[in-house]
Amino acid sequence: MNKEIEKLIAGIRPAYAQAVQLAEKRQEKLVKPPGSLGLLEDISIKYAGVSGKVQNHPEKFRVLVMCADNGIIEEGVSSAPRSVTKAQAVNMTRRLTGMSSMAKYFGDEVVVADLGIADDYDCPSILDRKISRGTKNFLKEDAMSREDAERAILIGAELVRQAEHDGVDVLGIGEMGIGNTSTSTAVLCTLTGIDVNTATGRGGGLTDEAFEHKRQVLEEALRRRQPDPEDVIGTIAKVGGLDIAAMCGAFLGAAECRIPVVIDGFISVVAALCAARLCPAAKDFMFPSHASAEPGYMTAIDALGLTPWLNLGMRLGEGSGCVVAFRVIEAACAEMNNMALFGEESVIDDSYLDEIREKGGFGEEKK
Amino acid sequence: MNKEIEKLIAGIRPAYAQAVQLAEKRQEKLVKPPGSLGLLEDISIKYAGVSGKVQNHPEKFRVLVMCADNGIIEEGVSSAPRSVTKAQAVNMTRRLTGMSSMAKYFGDEVVVADLGIADDYDCPSILDRKISRGTKNFLKEDAMSREDAERAILIGAELVRQAEHDGVDVLGIGEMGIGNTSTSTAVLCTLTGIDVNTATGRGGGLTDEAFEHKRQVLEEALRRRQPDPEDVIGTIAKVGGLDIAAMCGAFLGAAECRIPVVIDGFISVVAALCAARLCPAAKDFMFPSHASAEPGYMTAIDALGLTPWLNLGMRLGEGSGCVVAFRVIEAACAEMNNMALFGEESVIDDSYLDEIREKGGFGEEKK
Repeated sequence: MNKEIEKLIAGIRPAYAQAVQLAEKRQEKLVKPPGSLGLLEDISIKYAGVSGKVQNHPEKFRVLVMCADNGIIEEGVSSAPRSVTKAQAVNMTRRLTGMSSMAKYFGDEVVVADLGIADDYDCPSILDRKISRGTKNFLKEDAMSREDAERAILIGAELVRQAEHDGVDVLGIGEMGIGNTSTSTAVLCTLTGIDVNTATGRGGGLTDEAFEHKRQVLEEALRRRQPDPEDVIGTIAKVGGLDIAAMCGAFLGAAECRIPVVIDGFISVVAALCAARLCPAAKDFMFPSHASAEPGYMTAIDALGLTPWLNLGMRLGEGSGCVVAFRVIEAACAEMNNMALFGEESVIDDSYLDEIREKGGFGEEKK
Repeated sequence: MNKEIEKLIAGIRPAYAQAVQLAEKRQEKLVKPPGSLGLLEDISIKYAGVSGKVQNHPEKFRVLVMCADNGIIEEGVSSAPRSVTKAQAVNMTRRLTGMSSMAKYFGDEVVVADLGIADDYDCPSILDRKISRGTKNFLKEDAMSREDAERAILIGAELVRQAEHDGVDVLGIGEMGIGNTSTSTAVLCTLTGIDVNTATGRGGGLTDEAFEHKRQVLEEALRRRQPDPEDVIGTIAKVGGLDIAAMCGAFLGAAECRIPVVIDGFISVVAALCAARLCPAAKDFMFPSHASAEPGYMTAIDALGLTPWLNLGMRLGEGSGCVVAFRVIEAACAEMNNMALFGEESVIDDSYLDEIREKGGFGEEKK
């Protein structure tokens, strides 16, 4: 493996176990039946493992959007033309798209990086990290060289180091790239062994006929490319995309920099799975957001051992789910930070938890 | 029926159909594949039906918390003692509880009303709307008189009129009352016909033995009281609580005042169902939040035709789910308000939607 990627992975340490324990203890002392805030409690505890602090006050949220085109769209697997990648990347910098319009409202930062947009555009706000003008058609040849995949991974990690330098507290990882539900499906099927028919979805929107065609193309392409599930970077190079590679690198970088990182939808969760396969400890830094409507999403999030928080039927990408999930993280931190503890002077009647415990309650309820 | 409640119900008009249509049209023109923002689109469209405006800018959010004690706890159906109702009502005004600590963080208002707290306390911040010092034990007699149930409903509606007067944009309806998963379960079983064994949960936390006892108490109480499912107010009076009655009135009041109103967890959704049975048009103003961990929740939310947005395993009550859901509503408004439309000058490349439509795409995708 590339030495720099080896170094990146070697630099990742798992969650701080002691902070997790202290956070669990504090949760038990908050004025509520233990476990009654469900995943909000788990989020605050996981955050402690990331930062090493029981109480966290995230203020600066950033969505990192990796943009790249995919040669596989030559095969007619997408409902939208290639030019949309470029157009929406530009529109994002103007806060006109779904994710960015919400990010603007909440005051979240949006950083758009070009890893491989095929078409020309004039927009200095997009970070130029272009490796190529889109990947090759992986029905016919490998999507990219291993070296290009490695470069994209390292760029993703570097963009996170920049975020750390900028004082970002929480990251979200999004993407823009016509054809990237096809690449993500191919990577997911390779890594998990799930079959193409089960994993394939309609992406931005496909007719029944085009949907069936997409399945056939992906099945044939996987048969021809024969990606090795044990070789994650090789799989990305053969059937993935530059966006997926950079997102994978961003998930690794977030683990290295110990920044909580939110998974968006299908493409994002596949990239997160790639990162977790390269370095299982990276999972300690990943937070889910919404359950994407793409059928392969649940397979990937299950493989990561995560449960999505939001059930909104979204399938836009861009990082749109991250923006909503940032608010869930804020809520989790707020309850951890601001709720009173049993026994504090400000709290009236601090006897009830003990009384419940004496009765033997709660035992079955706590996860 | 009580004349004032009749008047309240008669004053409720359904969603503005034209605003809904205009909102649907605008959603189709936003720069994204139609339907790709899922329920966020539906939320923005429903909001238009409430306000009559396609674009909405909610700024003032308020959680209304109805507090009351329940005589049924004499039967040992709750893990926590009665004093917790009073204690947590006071703690809420100090923003020390789960819901109120999150509300404080996000700048949401919290209004705590005493409909029937049994114990004494000294806290002028709690609105005194006490009807009685808790209900009677409905295993032995009706929880309250029909007149008291009607008074509580009207107080709930009045608290919403006050919110309207205060310029509140969006309401959430929460509660505090030890024993109120028992009353809610009894009301739910009566109104929907679901059996007690299926609907009963562990509330704040019960041992296996106490849980089985709770089921038996509720079954026997329903056998004795014989509430009439066609008589919603009678059912609340016989086996419900003053909190449920006031919350039901608040849902009706929100419909009358045309304020979007967010359902919290199990007790809240049962009260919403009561309101919808009294006036089906009230559903047009209701927004779900999280899927409560209480088993009866899904029965009630299904009966309302709503899908919860958040899957956080919460079972705290207070209105805690509303505070997170307020952010989802904000996100939905932000995308409706701030996203660009195809064809606008600011947007580059506005051709792709037409291209997709020509190919016959999207048809199957749009709900």
